[in-house]
Amino acid sequence: MLRGGRAAPSSGGPLLDNTEIDVTGQGLPAPELPPPARVGDPLDRVDTPCLVLDLDAFDHNLRIMQDWADRWNVHLRPHAKAHKCPEVALRQAAIGARGICVQKVSEALPFVAAGVRDIHISNEVVGASKVELLASLARQARLSVCVDHADNVADLSRAAARQGSRIDVVVELDVGQARCGVSSPIAALELARRIESLPGLRFAGLQAYHGSLQHRRGHAERAAASREAAVRARECAHVLARHDYHCAIITGSGTGTAEFDAPGGIYTELQPGSYAFMDGDYGDNEWAGELRFRNSLFLLSTVMSVPCADRVVLDAGLKSTTIECGLPRLHERPGLSYVAANDEHGIVRVAAGAAAPALGAKVLLVPSHCDPTFNLHDTLVAVRAGVVEGLWPIAARGLSR
Amino acid sequence: MLRGGRAAPSSGGPLLDNTEIDVTGQGLPAPELPPPARVGDPLDRVDTPCLVLDLDAFDHNLRIMQDWADRWNVHLRPHAKAHKCPEVALRQAAIGARGICVQKVSEALPFVAAGVRDIHISNEVVGASKVELLASLARQARLSVCVDHADNVADLSRAAARQGSRIDVVVELDVGQARCGVSSPIAALELARRIESLPGLRFAGLQAYHGSLQHRRGHAERAAASREAAVRARECAHVLARHDYHCAIITGSGTGTAEFDAPGGIYTELQPGSYAFMDGDYGDNEWAGELRFRNSLFLLSTVMSVPCADRVVLDAGLKSTTIECGLPRLHERPGLSYVAANDEHGIVRVAAGAAAPALGAKVLLVPSHCDPTFNLHDTLVAVRAGVVEGLWPIAARGLSR
Repeated sequence: MLRGGRAAPSSGGPLLDNTEIDVTGQGLPAPELPPPARVGDPLDRVDTPCLVLDLDAFDHNLRIMQDWADRWNVHLRPHAKAHKCPEVALRQAAIGARGICVQKVSEALPFVAAGVRDIHISNEVVGASKVELLASLARQARLSVCVDHADNVADLSRAAARQGSRIDVVVELDVGQARCGVSSPIAALELARRIESLPGLRFAGLQAYHGSLQHRRGHAERAAASREAAVRARECAHVLARHDYHCAIITGSGTGTAEFDAPGGIYTELQPGSYAFMDGDYGDNEWAGELRFRNSLFLLSTVMSVPCADRVVLDAGLKSTTIECGLPRLHERPGLSYVAANDEHGIVRVAAGAAAPALGAKVLLVPSHCDPTFNLHDTLVAVRAGVVEGLWPIAARGLSR
Repeated sequence: MLRGGRAAPSSGGPLLDNTEIDVTGQGLPAPELPPPARVGDPLDRVDTPCLVLDLDAFDHNLRIMQDWADRWNVHLRPHAKAHKCPEVALRQAAIGARGICVQKVSEALPFVAAGVRDIHISNEVVGASKVELLASLARQARLSVCVDHADNVADLSRAAARQGSRIDVVVELDVGQARCGVSSPIAALELARRIESLPGLRFAGLQAYHGSLQHRRGHAERAAASREAAVRARECAHVLARHDYHCAIITGSGTGTAEFDAPGGIYTELQPGSYAFMDGDYGDNEWAGELRFRNSLFLLSTVMSVPCADRVVLDAGLKSTTIECGLPRLHERPGLSYVAANDEHGIVRVAAGAAAPALGAKVLLVPSHCDPTFNLHDTLVAVRAGVVEGLWPIAARGLSR
């Protein structure tokens, strides 16, 4: 079977149905990719790389946040952009969530299909096809959307008229993030007037979300900054109220600030998403108060190469987890550090004296940033006590329009 | 329509078929997401965020690299991990490519389904279900795979026997990357012996790929480092040959070093992938030699917010392009800089005096790293002279097992 020398490159395309290649079965259909796991499988039998949800920790997190919202008499409207998985939203609803947030109009589709009927798009929706889709969806669910520009308000109204639907419109107020949103109560008032002047729209209130604030590390610093943002929301709502525009909804908050925003008495609903899963970035916050969440989300990975004593290589890299918030960390593997993410590989340094995992061993990683990591996967494998309990489609994966 | 006050949170789940919500059409099926474009559409009508391929630049790049390989009498086996799109592979084959590389066994499936019959898995495949899938696929295509461990060789042989297939096995030699691969010719020789001793396997040669070297910026520095890696491959092949193990294949190289590896006379085939598209990271290399590629890959994005004179916000963030190799850059938009990527937003700074794009305007971004960016999208919109010519499924998107 030894072959010597070096063949000359062919000039044509030997790629297609190459009769030179002595393979059998070319008439067979291509094999299908089996699912990564089956219900009842032990975790060790799950194929990798695979996103895994620890249901005990997940249930705990859902309960903690719902109880917190109930205690402070605010609605919980968890953000589905974090997970893109209808089954997660249904479980949040089952214990009291008011509805969901999504960040893109296309992202709402699988949730509507799954029966979710109360959706806030916590973002501006701009562009003819997107606005039309939004107005169409509003025939099947209560839909609210953010605006920060009068032209967009007019587009929404025309689309609602065409579709015969009604859209709840929330003015986004920039409370310090410097991303989207109007920057003054006067600008918010002008938009509220515009919304109420046009058919098919209803002014529903304010969004006052501050994303970067969620990750301020210090507990006291995060508390102070949250109060500052909330005060700006309250001042804006007061200006609107003086002109008879009452904010039925003041929506905002996130995993990092729900602890402060719920008792603050300004927000009517909270839109955290990551709390159900946690990740390395949120884990690095100082959690000094009552709210404490557990890591429920893991990336299962296989050791695919053990080239030397101080290095092993995992089968999970940039296409299985993102690193803009840092590298993933190994879960309960002292002495092992994930030190570099290549496209399809994770390089793990083995400290002197640490137990190196064997070829084929499986390890759990904690992703650093859950939202974009979910967006890389089609299936969430739900596990309880080390046994697969369900395979949940991440049905809105890739729906970024 | 004004609503005042603040409703008490409900205790149950008002999310499902909420009869309180006065929407019509709840019995309708959820609307479907239309495709991002139709053939014949002008670029401006393509929905966003959307990956766009400039076919003129793409064709140019394909031709440049194929001519280069032909000139130096080496096979071109472009890497499909870069794009995961069968249509791209078929076009590379049509002008002379020898076959394709993939990085994961599952990634091969849509290419086999599309008729590709010569596939090199440029990586170790470890784990029972993966090895079985590989052996099964080897009944339908010539499949080669890398190994760097004797246990893995034994697993491959057993699976090939079960499936009645034959697998070409390539020993991966670490030529300086410090990732996978054996580190010495003696270790390579031991694996070659092991491969040839077992049924269902054929020793096919060496893989000597050095990933990080592709991005050494300086042209001369990259040339020198490439030669060094190639010399290690040649020395290993000589040791093997002295023991009658002839390397029919010495595979390696990439977009950054094909310029040096093709004339070097050591590699029998080149496995570049990004050259067809280019990206910000490869663009930052010094291209001082004969090979020059053009940017063919763009991310089309919409301006979704224009909150102030020096800032606009795009609808494309971390879920549409990755940033581990830097932020995306705006294409032909002087004075505009993409300065921050949020999950679904891109923040663009508008320099004083620069023309700020209007709300709803579309802009082209150059991704910094094409491989993981392709992996975020399901469709590649192929455009020539500003008009959509095709929608190509990125069929291996997410196939990381």
